[in-house]
Amino acid sequence: MPRSAETASFKFNHTMIRVKDPKQSLAFYQDVLGMDLLSKLDFADFTLYFLAFNHTGKELSDEEKKQARFSREGVLELTHNHGTENDPNFQGYASGNAEPGKGFGHIAIAVDDVDKACERFESLGVKFKKRPTDGKMKNIAFILDPDGYWVEIVPYYMGS
Amino acid sequence: MPRSAETASFKFNHTMIRVKDPKQSLAFYQDVLGMDLLSKLDFADFTLYFLAFNHTGKELSDEEKKQARFSREGVLELTHNHGTENDPNFQGYASGNAEPGKGFGHIAIAVDDVDKACERFESLGVKFKKRPTDGKMKNIAFILDPDGYWVEIVPYYMGS
Repeated sequence: MPRSAETASFKFNHTMIRVKDPKQSLAFYQDVLGMDLLSKLDFADFTLYFLAFNHTGKELSDEEKKQARFSREGVLELTHNHGTENDPNFQGYASGNAEPGKGFGHIAIAVDDVDKACERFESLGVKFKKRPTDGKMKNIAFILDPDGYWVEIVPYYMGS
Repeated sequence: MPRSAETASFKFNHTMIRVKDPKQSLAFYQDVLGMDLLSKLDFADFTLYFLAFNHTGKELSDEEKKQARFSREGVLELTHNHGTENDPNFQGYASGNAEPGKGFGHIAIAVDDVDKACERFESLGVKFKKRPTDGKMKNIAFILDPDGYWVEIVPYYMGS
């Protein structure tokens, strides 16, 4: 039940992060994690990429992808400010997990089998912040995307 | 269609941000935005709050809420490091949209009527980064959560 009539239509549509090099980021979010590119919006100085997992069991038409972009939950928006990918003076983006600038934490991908997912990430050369065997929490992992943002890997259902 | 069998189970489960005062943040995400609290996990030094919009049309049992936490998309995780709410020396968290620390952008809520949603936010005393009437993009707004994180308000379907 929605908490109030006024918010009944609300959906948590997307999370936006800035990326240095879209080629690397798209390879990560599409090929490593398996998201689909819903749309790409070009502006003079920047380009936006909207990605999401396709849970429909079928290919989406371009129109369906465009509609999904702002009408569903679980969308990731990547903002590429043109030029950062070739700029030797570009300092890179803060992941949000170090001072100063600590604040943003991570995005999380739920999977049916964390160990299997992590073996595959390992074989694809993905960098780990925390392997399932590290630390106390044996059933979760943290991998790093090309900009160093933390991506948590969690099993579908973690007991209480 | 999933891009590969190995990622077919993957879901974009949640986005985590740190918050100074959970009382203020819960009031914002529950009462202003209308999310439900799925679960609260207490640890020695910190507490995690998992929130999401309930689109099922019914109240969820505690067990269903706990399961939803890691089994669905569109979940927001708030991390409260105990003590920040009363610490006069706490500097506050970076929203991600200023240097240094720029990187994280925002989360976005899709709604059926941006103007109506914003009138209500206004009446509730919510701070705006950008009202629908400001700037070039008349069909979107940005409000600020209690920590200053940007929350974009977008209509369900924005044409091409």
